[in-house]
Amino acid sequence: MTYVAPIADFRFALEACADFWSLCERYPDLDADLLAAILDGAGALASETLAPINRSGDRAGVKLNGDVVTAAPGFREAYEAFKQGGWQGLAADPTYGGQGLPRALAIAVMETVHSANMSFALLPMLTLGAIEAIEQHGAPDQKKLYLEKLVSGEWSGTMNLTEPQAGSDLGAITTKAVAQADGSYAITGQKIFITWGEHDCAPNIIHLVLARIEGAPAGSKGISMFIVPKFRDEDGSRNAVRCIGLEEKMGIHASPTCTLAYEGATGWLIGQENKGLAAMFTMMNAARINVGMSGVGVAEAAYQKALAYARERKQGGKLIIEHPDVRRMLMTMRAKIQAGRAICYATAVAADAGEKAREDLLTPIAKAWCTDLGVEVSSLGVQVHGGMGFVEEGGAAQFYRDARIAPIYEGTNGIQAIDLYGRKLLSDRGEAMRQLIEEAGAVAGSTHPYLSAAIDALVDATDYMLAASRDDALTGANAYLQLAGDVVGGMLLIKGGARDPNAEQRALLRHYARTVLARAPSRVAEIRIGAEFLDASAL
Amino acid sequence: MTYVAPIADFRFALEACADFWSLCERYPDLDADLLAAILDGAGALASETLAPINRSGDRAGVKLNGDVVTAAPGFREAYEAFKQGGWQGLAADPTYGGQGLPRALAIAVMETVHSANMSFALLPMLTLGAIEAIEQHGAPDQKKLYLEKLVSGEWSGTMNLTEPQAGSDLGAITTKAVAQADGSYAITGQKIFITWGEHDCAPNIIHLVLARIEGAPAGSKGISMFIVPKFRDEDGSRNAVRCIGLEEKMGIHASPTCTLAYEGATGWLIGQENKGLAAMFTMMNAARINVGMSGVGVAEAAYQKALAYARERKQGGKLIIEHPDVRRMLMTMRAKIQAGRAICYATAVAADAGEKAREDLLTPIAKAWCTDLGVEVSSLGVQVHGGMGFVEEGGAAQFYRDARIAPIYEGTNGIQAIDLYGRKLLSDRGEAMRQLIEEAGAVAGSTHPYLSAAIDALVDATDYMLAASRDDALTGANAYLQLAGDVVGGMLLIKGGARDPNAEQRALLRHYARTVLARAPSRVAEIRIGAEFLDASAL
Repeated sequence: MTYVAPIADFRFALEACADFWSLCERYPDLDADLLAAILDGAGALASETLAPINRSGDRAGVKLNGDVVTAAPGFREAYEAFKQGGWQGLAADPTYGGQGLPRALAIAVMETVHSANMSFALLPMLTLGAIEAIEQHGAPDQKKLYLEKLVSGEWSGTMNLTEPQAGSDLGAITTKAVAQADGSYAITGQKIFITWGEHDCAPNIIHLVLARIEGAPAGSKGISMFIVPKFRDEDGSRNAVRCIGLEEKMGIHASPTCTLAYEGATGWLIGQENKGLAAMFTMMNAARINVGMSGVGVAEAAYQKALAYARERKQGGKLIIEHPDVRRMLMTMRAKIQAGRAICYATAVAADAGEKAREDLLTPIAKAWCTDLGVEVSSLGVQVHGGMGFVEEGGAAQFYRDARIAPIYEGTNGIQAIDLYGRKLLSDRGEAMRQLIEEAGAVAGSTHPYLSAAIDALVDATDYMLAASRDDALTGANAYLQLAGDVVGGMLLIKGGARDPNAEQRALLRHYARTVLARAPSRVAEIRIGAEFLDASAL
Repeated sequence: MTYVAPIADFRFALEACADFWSLCERYPDLDADLLAAILDGAGALASETLAPINRSGDRAGVKLNGDVVTAAPGFREAYEAFKQGGWQGLAADPTYGGQGLPRALAIAVMETVHSANMSFALLPMLTLGAIEAIEQHGAPDQKKLYLEKLVSGEWSGTMNLTEPQAGSDLGAITTKAVAQADGSYAITGQKIFITWGEHDCAPNIIHLVLARIEGAPAGSKGISMFIVPKFRDEDGSRNAVRCIGLEEKMGIHASPTCTLAYEGATGWLIGQENKGLAAMFTMMNAARINVGMSGVGVAEAAYQKALAYARERKQGGKLIIEHPDVRRMLMTMRAKIQAGRAICYATAVAADAGEKAREDLLTPIAKAWCTDLGVEVSSLGVQVHGGMGFVEEGGAAQFYRDARIAPIYEGTNGIQAIDLYGRKLLSDRGEAMRQLIEEAGAVAGSTHPYLSAAIDALVDATDYMLAASRDDALTGANAYLQLAGDVVGGMLLIKGGARDPNAEQRALLRHYARTVLARAPSRVAEIRIGAEFLDASAL
């Protein structure tokens, strides 16, 4: 049994929970047939092409020979199929060959790609980030030069932030850019943790690189962003960027995580000098929804595998699925997946609808809540399998190993919590959150006591966060993000159930209420814990 | 930086939380000097001999050649040091060379072994199970023949339960035993998931094997237990039990997980015919405390590694430990570890004190609550490391992979929850639980509102579990076990704090109260969820 895209769940989450059709004025060509055709097509690609090379890719991994990275067997062909299907450009600008469809649809497609093969999914995911950055910050000639080939999937893209000495501290970047006579820059430095930074699936790779122009201010205000193509635009010659190492990781083995050495590579400034961080953040924000989606995707794959195992494996004379505790685990898995899916889709719908404040508020929640979910659900998947869950042959172990990266990259979940507090809550003194809470209150009405209690807790916690000292607020920020995610997930499931009442989704909502929402109010104690409680002398 | 045994934490948990000195009448030779000497000695062995081969063992794994299993480099020598130190027989009967010390002390020693090297720890842990089974169920000549060599660590022991077709369903065992003229049995069948089932660290391996005597009743009432030595007692010749495969696992790579083929191997009945399951359960119960301890042990190792990393790694111009969210994670790790440690020690103290009802009640809680903790804490350890947490070189990843087995083996945590309900709570209509709750209430007094609220929830939940239908109760059993663990952990930390007030432990207690105890009451909603909510049509 391999992964099958849960199309009905996608559609429930999109249409009933996430108000997908509120976008129809902005996307007049969109209709239910097109939606169905796209989801079916993506599902078929996932099941037939990507899922079959997931386990083999995990075992084979990627190989580095000199500076040549060879993808796992079948990945080149799979990428070719992905490209031919036009999947890369689903939400991209039609001027450059994109289909101009909503991002909400594009991330639903990415979910199924992540479920089938998380290592593979990172390749188009990073390209999406590059497209986004060039669309928003590129000069016209840069758009012309790169977008068409990125949108078609002919070339792939990467994000180059981290350096060995700097970690997530982008202000500490030391890669330098020296202006050349022809208007380009010579880029020199080393970048680490570059996902799909080198590979043989596409003839060219477009690196978006953070570096510091000679003489730029210190810290984060002196960072600029550069486009560094693997092969130079001018003459097609090989640029001076080389892969000098691959990380040995716990999971996503078929995705090369590269150390890239830039030795005077030709780069082109994108956006304004010293405004590289802002450009990188647009790129990262788009990527964060997709990373949240990957948490849901890997969780769905883990769920399907566990469900199939529970339905075919006997224990104590009966199928394991007949054991209440196994059903409980499966139900928890599915309920959280559906809530997480709705959160990601709703975030993308807000982006598509131009509701910037809502998009900004939901993005860190989608990223962190859904990637934590990926870890928790894939762990339950291991547990449902019993001993076979720990054995690699069983397949559940890979999801558990793969899922663990998602709370870390594109900004750790701790950074998401800081973002939700510092850049979102504080920046509008809680206005966007108040609107969200109001909407949730209307959805809860008087008939959803678990959601109502969770909302009350969120109101209380929001007041606290706005009034607290920065250190106190940051101490509670993770629990605050979790609480907000619990509420948004519950609100969306209830919205969906009101619009499309069906017994299956209603059972998930009941389970979510008694397991997730019931817990939500207790998070306030942790949110209010206060920095002085974190007595470092006790560590 | 490598693992260092946290002796002060061991002593706080043993002496202040778990009433260790209540045992002094039963163990008159025991005093504080001896306690300190044993813990120091075990800590030195762990840091100097076992921790240094933990990562190399993970990478090298074990090798099967023909039917010969070769341990990872250094493991033979480490086992020799363990044996020479007399660690195996710490709590064993002095008649057979043991030191007759409390099991509570023996499991504290095992904790540090697990922290340093979980793969290694399983070898003596399984031997402990074999010692326990033979001490309790063996005939005098069997004790004479095997115990001395097991207690000294010269020979190792194994437990053989699982068969390919049967999983945890012991009633479905088909390995057969045919009586021979000399009083032995010829054992034929296949066993899987046999930890350290074959290796080159000891010259003989004593397998305790469940099998079915010809003509025995069907199901679990027809299972007997046999001693099957790798080398026959009579003439030292090789017995017909061979390793025919090793599992490729997600973690504990240096611990061989064997498929053993018995082809008419000579076995000796231990205990009564058809009473093998009862004998196996004594063995498993002892092992369960140790598995719980392994959850705490791997968590402690993950905590120490994360703390060291947070103290040396800079991010955003400051050490990561200065970030409140990182301190929060570290504090959660340490608080839960200390609670779990106290639970395991208290379980062992109850066993040593002959408080059977308390021991029985706490055993499934110690096993499940503490192994879930191992997974959660090792995941936080990965998170504290950021990108380095996902890279194998960082070392945090191994703890995360290793920790995942503990909720599965020696009875999955789902089975522990069933055990707590079915064999413990129901068997005395909640009496042992009521006594525990009463004690917790006295500890909480009127000054620990979080514990008091959690106790109220446990009272409510216990009434529910006793009154509910079996299916309803089993649906809530996991959440019930979690709640009970939350309460016991909180009670023990408060007890410890009252006896030994120190700022460090008090800070942990405060954190535990606001993160773990604050959540506890909300578990009642999940406990009361009821079987009908687990609508299988929604899966």
